[in-house]
Amino acid sequence: MDHLQLFRNIVAKRSFLCVGLDTEVDKIPRHLLKYKDPVLEFNKRIIDATQQYTVAYKPNLAFYESNGPAGWITLDATLKYIRKNYPGIFVIADAKRGDIGNTSRMYARAFLENMDFDAVTVAPYMGEDSVMPFLAVKDKWVVLLALTSNKGADDFQYHNDDGIRLFERVLSVSKKWGTNDNMMYVVGATRAEMLRDIRKIVPDHFLLIPGVGAQGGSLEEVTKYGMTNKCGLLVNSSRGIIFADDSRKFADASAEKALEMRKEMEKYLLERNLVQ
Amino acid sequence: MDHLQLFRNIVAKRSFLCVGLDTEVDKIPRHLLKYKDPVLEFNKRIIDATQQYTVAYKPNLAFYESNGPAGWITLDATLKYIRKNYPGIFVIADAKRGDIGNTSRMYARAFLENMDFDAVTVAPYMGEDSVMPFLAVKDKWVVLLALTSNKGADDFQYHNDDGIRLFERVLSVSKKWGTNDNMMYVVGATRAEMLRDIRKIVPDHFLLIPGVGAQGGSLEEVTKYGMTNKCGLLVNSSRGIIFADDSRKFADASAEKALEMRKEMEKYLLERNLVQ
Repeated sequence: MDHLQLFRNIVAKRSFLCVGLDTEVDKIPRHLLKYKDPVLEFNKRIIDATQQYTVAYKPNLAFYESNGPAGWITLDATLKYIRKNYPGIFVIADAKRGDIGNTSRMYARAFLENMDFDAVTVAPYMGEDSVMPFLAVKDKWVVLLALTSNKGADDFQYHNDDGIRLFERVLSVSKKWGTNDNMMYVVGATRAEMLRDIRKIVPDHFLLIPGVGAQGGSLEEVTKYGMTNKCGLLVNSSRGIIFADDSRKFADASAEKALEMRKEMEKYLLERNLVQ
Repeated sequence: MDHLQLFRNIVAKRSFLCVGLDTEVDKIPRHLLKYKDPVLEFNKRIIDATQQYTVAYKPNLAFYESNGPAGWITLDATLKYIRKNYPGIFVIADAKRGDIGNTSRMYARAFLENMDFDAVTVAPYMGEDSVMPFLAVKDKWVVLLALTSNKGADDFQYHNDDGIRLFERVLSVSKKWGTNDNMMYVVGATRAEMLRDIRKIVPDHFLLIPGVGAQGGSLEEVTKYGMTNKCGLLVNSSRGIIFADDSRKFADASAEKALEMRKEMEKYLLERNLVQ
């Protein structure tokens, strides 16, 4: 899927919502525990309930790995469920990988070939040869960490070399490695004020924005500073949507939360004439 | 295991060798493919052949993940094989993880609790709250990336804020998060000349040194600039040892390579009176 197709999907759904499938088994409704794979059962219902308001899903690998080999089976089954029932939805493996070249090659194989994810999140610390093996896979995307939503982002990402902060260097150096059809960047919604500076470096690239909701970021701010004429944003919400309620009606509650976000997103898309 | 126990193990074996179990199924001897789990079979034989010269093993997760859920079963079985047959050997999950706090907590659970690794490698980009959940697990270690062995290390790790390069900032900031009993650092052997500067910041911490062998780093240089009075080094070799030969005698060839490295290590330990 190229960036124009992603934009068409956004227009069709009037939404640039990504739902984070950070499914912690301790947090899912108790009545699902009777199923053989409670996490898969939960994911399916969340997906069915939210897919009409959603252009992307993003399972975070940590929540699956913490269940060992069974977690990987759940992850793969979740991806296949989306592919089979809702083709065209963009699916991101939030794995934050990155290693020396021959090793990143193996990670690329795991997520973009053996499993059919559209994209994988990658950490930039090890530089170009740690990222290129992911970009070498045709029609797939790298989502590179630039400025993250957590407090610890302050520790190193603002390290300032002659007026260039590390996250800016990551953007300006790495944008030469790929194109806006195979690279996007993570920028935390909690850093929305930085989006103005970021858009000077990457005016057209899609940005994946976590941190709206549970982490406190504002969708309005993100849109104000980050939206392009092809939208250029995927805004992620995880806990705020998937754990909206833990009763038997959890999926309805998730749908409601996703619809709320979609309505706000539609408003911003209308304001900028990106939808009619 | 604390750093003194690690040092005692080094003295007992007259070696500070870590063998990287980066087992690529395409590279193992063909006659092993008849086994149900060829990678496990390969690992067991490499471990049996090298353990007397080795204080640590380090499977890199990418090579296991590229085999899907089955790869995780192989990884866990490999770890259990080491624990059962060679207790006291330090085992590092080379996973290069790191995410926001609640997510890193899940990774810590995966590697340090559900699986019984002694240590996990972590990428520093996301800062303190991405690392602390690993350090919170008692008697376990974080191995934080500081200066890596690959070419891409030049892209961001030398980013220089007022005379402080990023890898130096990673060291000076992060050393306050833990102690030299639960933190060590990755420093590539290909950057041995930097070890003098690094030892000014972390004089006592153990360093995990990849890049000797296939990547061209020198053990002599690493020892010259990096060794402390408690050794303070784990030097890793992966491909150079485990893929020394692809015939039926592959394990003997690996043992020979490991013994060669151990002999050179013993020489440096003797020169510094760390062993008698």
